[in-house]
Amino acid sequence: MIMDVDPTWQPPTVEEITARLHAAQAKMAEQKLDWYVCFSPDNIYYLTNFANFVHERPFVLLIPAKGGLKFIAPKLEIPHIDSRRVGEIELIEYFEFPAPAGGAWFDLLDRVVGGSARVGVESICQLQIYEAIRAERVRTDIVDDLRMIKSRYEIGRMVHAGRIATAAMADFLAKAAVGRSLSDVMASGKSLAMGMMVQDMPSLNPFATRVDVVFQPPSTSDDPHNFSNLAVVMEDGGPHVSVINGVFNGYGSELERTYFLGHAPEAAKKPFEAMIEVRRLAFDSIRPGVRMHDIDKAGHDLFRARGFEAQLLHRCGHGMGVTGHEAPFLAEGDHRIIQPGMSFTIEPGIYVKGVGGFRHSDTIIVTEDGIVSLTDAPESLDALTL
Amino acid sequence: MIMDVDPTWQPPTVEEITARLHAAQAKMAEQKLDWYVCFSPDNIYYLTNFANFVHERPFVLLIPAKGGLKFIAPKLEIPHIDSRRVGEIELIEYFEFPAPAGGAWFDLLDRVVGGSARVGVESICQLQIYEAIRAERVRTDIVDDLRMIKSRYEIGRMVHAGRIATAAMADFLAKAAVGRSLSDVMASGKSLAMGMMVQDMPSLNPFATRVDVVFQPPSTSDDPHNFSNLAVVMEDGGPHVSVINGVFNGYGSELERTYFLGHAPEAAKKPFEAMIEVRRLAFDSIRPGVRMHDIDKAGHDLFRARGFEAQLLHRCGHGMGVTGHEAPFLAEGDHRIIQPGMSFTIEPGIYVKGVGGFRHSDTIIVTEDGIVSLTDAPESLDALTL
Repeated sequence: MIMDVDPTWQPPTVEEITARLHAAQAKMAEQKLDWYVCFSPDNIYYLTNFANFVHERPFVLLIPAKGGLKFIAPKLEIPHIDSRRVGEIELIEYFEFPAPAGGAWFDLLDRVVGGSARVGVESICQLQIYEAIRAERVRTDIVDDLRMIKSRYEIGRMVHAGRIATAAMADFLAKAAVGRSLSDVMASGKSLAMGMMVQDMPSLNPFATRVDVVFQPPSTSDDPHNFSNLAVVMEDGGPHVSVINGVFNGYGSELERTYFLGHAPEAAKKPFEAMIEVRRLAFDSIRPGVRMHDIDKAGHDLFRARGFEAQLLHRCGHGMGVTGHEAPFLAEGDHRIIQPGMSFTIEPGIYVKGVGGFRHSDTIIVTEDGIVSLTDAPESLDALTL
Repeated sequence: MIMDVDPTWQPPTVEEITARLHAAQAKMAEQKLDWYVCFSPDNIYYLTNFANFVHERPFVLLIPAKGGLKFIAPKLEIPHIDSRRVGEIELIEYFEFPAPAGGAWFDLLDRVVGGSARVGVESICQLQIYEAIRAERVRTDIVDDLRMIKSRYEIGRMVHAGRIATAAMADFLAKAAVGRSLSDVMASGKSLAMGMMVQDMPSLNPFATRVDVVFQPPSTSDDPHNFSNLAVVMEDGGPHVSVINGVFNGYGSELERTYFLGHAPEAAKKPFEAMIEVRRLAFDSIRPGVRMHDIDKAGHDLFRARGFEAQLLHRCGHGMGVTGHEAPFLAEGDHRIIQPGMSFTIEPGIYVKGVGGFRHSDTIIVTEDGIVSLTDAPESLDALTL
């Protein structure tokens, strides 16, 4: 099903976009909704191929129970919506924010949905939008839920994104050396990824492209979100953790490796092997029909059995798609059932004070009977002692 | 009052942060609120000196009617909050999102505010947070409102930001030449600004730093938010529009100029002069006691009188502070009264199809009797024909 999907970076076809709209409308019918209000820029991108960046002028996409999309947007942005949108969308423009009485975005919203009975809204809907809807309002994440299952076309986009992440990691590891600075790594990783995406022109969308190529040296890798010091350099030994997380022209990918320069300290070997063991357990047990919760719990239980309970800081993975972080989550408490077409990271990690962080991450797609990884890099302690 | 403020890049003192908290609590008392819930990362930064980036793990800052702040945050981020926060904050950590029953962020939120009567929430509060509050909920933007009036300390931060923007524009204009590419401009502008901010170390905060240095050539400058083609280069003639908008280690600044290479086409002269005329009107009429609305309306009326009604695409300015775009707005419909300590851009603009865009922008501070500009660059057609 998935192994034979070719990479693509073309925008979705009208048929692809229409199928998404119809799938949303089918869920709306089940929930008896007259309208569904999208504020999330990721959901708007998914339904229109237009990527906005959030500022104080709201963009509000309205899905009717039947028929085409309506899109309330600032006048300033109308040409950009027109240049990217796929399929028919009725554009409803407002001049500015704030606006004189009667001409504000919420006046236009009220004119469209004001007379309806039941309106669906997203969990991340802003209160100012929620309060502007005069109807019964139901919190429901219809579009986020749809996004969890990737179409064949989307898998092609994610294969493309995964190849760029894979190439960026190969380059990163080839250049890793004591003294190499974070700023050099950021500049060089971004340049390589952007260079590969130039082939996507003219469909390359800068507003749907964000590339992070960074690393943590052993002195900070025990604190996995610590990127506050831009002056760090690679050190002798390890563990270092490299991070490639990005949205590569519309679709995300993540690839991370724990690596060593010259030698792996003795204290690093046991946590590294525990991480590899939990990772192997996750790779072997993820398949359709299993709960996300159970994978995370089994992984954390194995870490606990190996003595690393106090070294846990996060879940074993997160979904991937038009963003680099989305539902579903490999987390205790996420009771969703794994299905073919889901994509997420597998990244169990532990963080040992005074030693460092231990985490590999790969982005996978769920197939009919297991998983396929969209990213690739060496995994073993030997291969990652550079 | 303002002319003698020295630039600073130091974090706020405990006294400065405490004064902000007390000012928020005074407004809460007026509105009879037991708690105020901040989700906006800008408001959280303003009250704590900790800049988070928004991801799916919520950060929720809670202001009590009396006493110190409480902050619900993911375990992964606790060390970063600790390393930046100024003043006492009770940290309430949760392990992950999603989470098993009883251990989720909303369970912790309920444990703190669940028993209270009346809770204030921001206009941009997410519905999932709003629905987790079991109390009377009042939409009110107490912290956004406080942020509109800058303290003497904040003006020092903004003087610093304005100096970096001014230096970046001087460098931009010195290097402007036919054929110079957008990617060269972006790389060189960012490098100059980051180089100046290195002096701020160790207080430089990368999560409160975003620098955009870009331009539009005459072929796209009639569409002011069109930055979708990274391959553009500077052209003979004009109008080009240069844009420097950033948050420079914690505080924003914006500086923009309309410029020409070699010569200004005849068709560009009348719109350029109309823009200068409206700009002069705004500079001369902004002072304490005047409404934001009236400045914008007078500016647009003057553009209309000069025959440019159809060429208007946006308001005459927006507020500046810990972000590069915030309240108040120089917009028809913003009925706020201008007060000393407010900061905003002055940037009337018109966009002539087939000719290009005409907009200068400067960041100003309102004084007791007028304004002072925090940014500086040449303004006249002669000086901007390079």
